[in-house]
Amino acid sequence: MAKVAVILSGSGFLDGAEIQESVITMLTLDKAGAEYQCMAPDMEQMHVVNHLTGEVSEGEQRNVLVEAARIARMKVIDIAEANPSDYAAVIFPGGFGAAKNLSDFAIKGANSTVQSDVLQFARSFAATGKPMGYVCIAPAMIPHIYGAGAKLTIGSDTDTAAAITEMGGVHINCPVEEFVVDAERKIVSTPAYMLDVRISEAAVGIEKLVHKVLEMIDGK
Amino acid sequence: MAKVAVILSGSGFLDGAEIQESVITMLTLDKAGAEYQCMAPDMEQMHVVNHLTGEVSEGEQRNVLVEAARIARMKVIDIAEANPSDYAAVIFPGGFGAAKNLSDFAIKGANSTVQSDVLQFARSFAATGKPMGYVCIAPAMIPHIYGAGAKLTIGSDTDTAAAITEMGGVHINCPVEEFVVDAERKIVSTPAYMLDVRISEAAVGIEKLVHKVLEMIDGK
Repeated sequence: MAKVAVILSGSGFLDGAEIQESVITMLTLDKAGAEYQCMAPDMEQMHVVNHLTGEVSEGEQRNVLVEAARIARMKVIDIAEANPSDYAAVIFPGGFGAAKNLSDFAIKGANSTVQSDVLQFARSFAATGKPMGYVCIAPAMIPHIYGAGAKLTIGSDTDTAAAITEMGGVHINCPVEEFVVDAERKIVSTPAYMLDVRISEAAVGIEKLVHKVLEMIDGK
Repeated sequence: MAKVAVILSGSGFLDGAEIQESVITMLTLDKAGAEYQCMAPDMEQMHVVNHLTGEVSEGEQRNVLVEAARIARMKVIDIAEANPSDYAAVIFPGGFGAAKNLSDFAIKGANSTVQSDVLQFARSFAATGKPMGYVCIAPAMIPHIYGAGAKLTIGSDTDTAAAITEMGGVHINCPVEEFVVDAERKIVSTPAYMLDVRISEAAVGIEKLVHKVLEMIDGK
């Protein structure tokens, strides 16, 4: 049974992992007979957003790993303690947490960096040539992990695509029900909630991404 | 297109709505072509639990409606302002939030009560004879909503079943991939994470419950 690392960035799309994308990823992996292990960095969130109003909740602070445990039903580990060689594939669900906690792309765009524990795990994993999937805004981390030239999608937002291009990524527009593959680097990406879609539409693309990543484990 | 109310109790299974059950409910409704509206009571949570350790986070407080908005991607309304006649069916996902916020069953068992806004909405809805679905521990509210004699399941936990029986419910043991129907009252229930199961196993029962509830809208 293939073991897949699912890297979460909190719990809630405005300041953490996109909950629906995360659950659909886990459900699709489990339905396909793959085992998964959730992980997240042990760090404070960039901030806390009130998801009813969309406003920053001043003075409130939450931990990315602790909040990720809500989605994972307690079964989550610190990514700093995870060993890339234990996993056959990695999937990053999206949500602003990928651009506020796992990286600072939401603030710094083309000048962003990736959080050190996440970068170390992802680079080590990428170096082994095993497949990785990136959902929603998570593909904005790809240039940092693979260097210039990697093909990816974040949907069709021109400003976001321009920033990624400036970082060395090769952006390809993609509709919600499809995905983009970089076959050489074994990278799969899909836009999901980067587009204004219904949950079942986001699910189509994420389900395809998960199945493609699992196929790539077997060298297809 | 049928419009279904999905009643959330926060975000995180130890102090709020079970996230995976909630997302699977929404995904299944949307895949089936039903519209849904998330709602929750505007109230402080009973407490906040650190989902990494399982311990109560002393001094921390969160609002049920505000946290539910994380699962619902902001699209959630105060149940006190919802009109039962706007909906063709109602589904309650589970999680301890159903027994700590929507009711106090987790603390008071057979002597529990249901939160007033939730009780008013649910009783008004039940009185119209339209179908309602209850997942996980949410069925513990059924005796309060329908009075004695309603058939339901919370799986097979004997202590929980005994408390529900004391309240006037008729408990029927049920495996995770099945559901229990009270045809007279149009109530469907399934145990989901009341049992120690994988996400895809919980999904089987929840998907069946959603489809059964939608069938009942059409009088089947």
